[in-house]
Amino acid sequence: MEFLSDFLTKFGSQLQSPTLGFLIGGIIIAALGSKLEIPDAIYKFIVFMLLTKVGLSGGIAIRNSNITEMVLPALFAVVTGMLIVFIGRYTLAKLPGIRTVDALATAGLFGAVSGSTLAAGITVLEAEGIPYEPWAGALYPFMDIPALVTAIVVASIYTSKQKQSATAGEDLSKQEYLSKQEYLSKQSVAAGEYPGKQEYPTTRQEYRKQQRITASGYPREQQNRVKIWPIVKESLEGSALSALLLGLALGLLTRPESVYESFYDPLFRGLLSILMLVMGMEAWSRIGELRKVAQWYAVYALVAPLLHGFIAFGLGMVAHYATGFTPGGVALLAVIAASSSDISGPPTLRAGIPSANPSAYIGASTAVGTPIAIAVGIPLFVGLAQALMGS
Amino acid sequence: MEFLSDFLTKFGSQLQSPTLGFLIGGIIIAALGSKLEIPDAIYKFIVFMLLTKVGLSGGIAIRNSNITEMVLPALFAVVTGMLIVFIGRYTLAKLPGIRTVDALATAGLFGAVSGSTLAAGITVLEAEGIPYEPWAGALYPFMDIPALVTAIVVASIYTSKQKQSATAGEDLSKQEYLSKQEYLSKQSVAAGEYPGKQEYPTTRQEYRKQQRITASGYPREQQNRVKIWPIVKESLEGSALSALLLGLALGLLTRPESVYESFYDPLFRGLLSILMLVMGMEAWSRIGELRKVAQWYAVYALVAPLLHGFIAFGLGMVAHYATGFTPGGVALLAVIAASSSDISGPPTLRAGIPSANPSAYIGASTAVGTPIAIAVGIPLFVGLAQALMGS
Amino acid sequence: MEFLSDFLTKFGSQLQSPTLGFLIGGIIIAALGSKLEIPDAIYKFIVFMLLTKVGLSGGIAIRNSNITEMVLPALFAVVTGMLIVFIGRYTLAKLPGIRTVDALATAGLFGAVSGSTLAAGITVLEAEGIPYEPWAGALYPFMDIPALVTAIVVASIYTSKQKQSATAGEDLSKQEYLSKQEYLSKQSVAAGEYPGKQEYPTTRQEYRKQQRITASGYPREQQNRVKIWPIVKESLEGSALSALLLGLALGLLTRPESVYESFYDPLFRGLLSILMLVMGMEAWSRIGELRKVAQWYAVYALVAPLLHGFIAFGLGMVAHYATGFTPGGVALLAVIAASSSDISGPPTLRAGIPSANPSAYIGASTAVGTPIAIAVGIPLFVGLAQALMGS
Repeated sequence: MEFLSDFLTKFGSQLQSPTLGFLIGGIIIAALGSKLEIPDAIYKFIVFMLLTKVGLSGGIAIRNSNITEMVLPALFAVVTGMLIVFIGRYTLAKLPGIRTVDALATAGLFGAVSGSTLAAGITVLEAEGIPYEPWAGALYPFMDIPALVTAIVVASIYTSKQKQSATAGEDLSKQEYLSKQEYLSKQSVAAGEYPGKQEYPTTRQEYRKQQRITASGYPREQQNRVKIWPIVKESLEGSALSALLLGLALGLLTRPESVYESFYDPLFRGLLSILMLVMGMEAWSRIGELRKVAQWYAVYALVAPLLHGFIAFGLGMVAHYATGFTPGGVALLAVIAASSSDISGPPTLRAGIPSANPSAYIGASTAVGTPIAIAVGIPLFVGLAQALMGS
Repeated sequence: MEFLSDFLTKFGSQLQSPTLGFLIGGIIIAALGSKLEIPDAIYKFIVFMLLTKVGLSGGIAIRNSNITEMVLPALFAVVTGMLIVFIGRYTLAKLPGIRTVDALATAGLFGAVSGSTLAAGITVLEAEGIPYEPWAGALYPFMDIPALVTAIVVASIYTSKQKQSATAGEDLSKQEYLSKQEYLSKQSVAAGEYPGKQEYPTTRQEYRKQQRITASGYPREQQNRVKIWPIVKESLEGSALSALLLGLALGLLTRPESVYESFYDPLFRGLLSILMLVMGMEAWSRIGELRKVAQWYAVYALVAPLLHGFIAFGLGMVAHYATGFTPGGVALLAVIAASSSDISGPPTLRAGIPSANPSAYIGASTAVGTPIAIAVGIPLFVGLAQALMGS
Repeated sequence: MEFLSDFLTKFGSQLQSPTLGFLIGGIIIAALGSKLEIPDAIYKFIVFMLLTKVGLSGGIAIRNSNITEMVLPALFAVVTGMLIVFIGRYTLAKLPGIRTVDALATAGLFGAVSGSTLAAGITVLEAEGIPYEPWAGALYPFMDIPALVTAIVVASIYTSKQKQSATAGEDLSKQEYLSKQEYLSKQSVAAGEYPGKQEYPTTRQEYRKQQRITASGYPREQQNRVKIWPIVKESLEGSALSALLLGLALGLLTRPESVYESFYDPLFRGLLSILMLVMGMEAWSRIGELRKVAQWYAVYALVAPLLHGFIAFGLGMVAHYATGFTPGGVALLAVIAASSSDISGPPTLRAGIPSANPSAYIGASTAVGTPIAIAVGIPLFVGLAQALMGS
């Protein structure tokens, strides 16, 4: 009883946090048709600042701490990332009217990690004074990369099996037939919507276009064998992970305390508020894309963040009792799992699963997944960690 | 006597303030041909930061204060905004060689409010330690929107009357004839200057182009009936007012104190200094436009800010003695009246009074009106408020 | 002995400074193919912020100090700037396979000053608590402009002499013949590489394109007489020097202390760290250009910054014993001499020595000169100043 009231109080107070306020504010002003615009250059700069800060604080912390503590949580992050893809494979992909490759790409994106959601989670922990391992932010790549690699590998195996059955003249199962039909009809309908180079409609076009160009370096035609290293490399080279790893390395190998304390740390919270505003406006502008695809994507995007978060939360509690992983760390692991990638994931998936429809996965993640992860997931898992493990 | 010396001291010390220094510095380096450039993305970001800060502090303040105090000043703001348009209608529009629609658009712009001038006024009050109602910044829309609506409605009524007289075969009065003639001659002369899409020459082209596109949503051909709601809606959707109202709502409904105190408030003054530099450079670059139109625009732009400020100052003093409106609040109301819109006003007027010549109103406002409001208006009204009502 | 160990300790501790860490980090992530990108708008804004800060602090300091102290260091800055060009004329230009005009342009660029390197030097002095004359940053133009003017004038005299010899039918000396041959062969080879407008390959294209356009105001065809004023004017109008001089003027003539202490000063170090990251990434991306030209440019770019720094350091020590120029000031004068221009210099040289190959001078400066000046020059001269003159 006390647990429940305790939890509800924590949950309630989160709803008035500036992080959430700016997110919802962004959705509302976009819905009202405001011309307010945060320039792309500012958006990219804020992402750089936030993830460099997360990296720097992680690097400085690792320098003075016992790195072996990180082994179990990192392992659990890898497991969660891979599990999320298989959950998508056996739930979303089995639903009527859903193409398997689209489902895999969507699950890959929901397994991948959002730097902004991570930053929002850290802010809440700091505002509440809940301690967490400063290296917890460094769990990001341990979940992000396995999720993307698994999604691309599974999609590739699936696609080549499909081709073999087709050439062998075997009958397609009813469901696959349906999704194939739908695919063909969709292709003709959507011809004007995402043809050739413009098939990735986005207000952050330029940014992503550039990423797309660099991404085109590796073969789009998936052969029977999927090369894993290019996928890993592309993830690591993405702007968000690059900034995080750069910060980590600088924190570990140099003495950036002066610049961290005078610049990166004090600006963190404020810049995050602006990023949340952008996420909110972006979420609203993506709603349209979600309407074009099967309604099941919206259902998945509503449920999956919390389901993924609970899985990671459970694993995190195991680490809590086994190696003393802090409640704050457990909450952060759950937030990372609840988040879905908004910056680096989409170009990797586009290159890795070229047959998937970007409207499906980007719409689901940006318009529904991210707002749910931030507005519901963060207060939920932080409140739960406090109520279950004290703090 | 003491009043005068007191006032002169206050006025003099303002001339060395960084706000004014950066404004004049911007004019000078632009005049000397400097290639220094503040990128557009930075400019837009600064406007967002400043108006969100003004909104947030207003919202936080309103949450803890008696909102009925705001009624009289808000009413006076509305009255001033409408009055400014009628003053323009019966002074500027009556001058030789001035087209009535151009005069109305110019008066509308001078009645509308500049977020940067408002921010500069707030900075001076804070630097001087003069108390003011924190909701005073929220008077912005109460003057801005009535001024724009009045200008567009009066211009529309005027234009349709003109058409009726023309079709009825009635003689045009000499003056109207003159202005019609001038209009026609100007149209042929100016064909190369503001034809079609390029008729709005600006260094901030992209920004405004985008605003123009969104603005094109409502009918450019004014019928007999003017719809007021689209004008109000477009004003509210402008980037400056959006940021202010977003901040206001967040300040009222959430608890943004942490992010306000660690980010928006401390950066305010510094960002304003950069904005002033941009305003100065912009003012210089607009001088050329002003030269193309009748000299009376320059005269109007020199006199009007102070005249409008005095009107609002007088009304503010009524509120001071009636309901205890603070001297700082009175000064701010006068500064709001003295300011002329530089960001959101022009696109609204272009859409609302399509027959008016943008060179006339933008040149007058940016090149002369804004520098006068900041460099003369702010120290004048702040000094006057201190000298007349103590502080 | 003690001197040496003292110096080595100081030198070693610099290698862990965040400034250097971010520079090397930038080189490494660019080499690893990271897609991390600091938008151009942010880059320009940072340069503005840093140089305005340097200017403001200089202006505020000059207001309260004895300006005659500046005479000797300023004179030495002028001498160093001119000397650097003549050193290039009689070393680099005499090497096999080097065209004289290319050598002169390169020497001019290495004589010109880098605002970022200057800012990095100031940060190190402040982090170490070493006092320096706050007007020392204002020595920038005293070295920058003479170097550029000398390089352009000497190149012009050389070119017109060449023409006279050619028309007079005189034999070219073997070396000049060689370089002429090489020039012609290079022109045909490089036709696709830097033809017409695209001959200046750069990731910061837009920025420089704009500068180029403004630069095109003065005659590209050098006549017998070189006009010096346009070169000086163009240098002063460059964005970096403009910001520095604006800050200086505002610091001298207004009271910007409030905005300096709340904004420009606290953000200085953090913004510099980002600028260093950009410099590192830029250095890596320029390596390719350096490969296209003679290897001697790389050798020159490695040696010249330190040689130039030592010359200025020696002159600075004279000023130290003659008029009490502080050790920190001596170190900064040496850092200014070691730096090579990365923003304002290239367009001036392109306009002033149009026959020179930009790949030679920009590659040498950005890819090697600047990293050497920051990573080796700054710790070297700061350590040397402390060891030789105490602090």
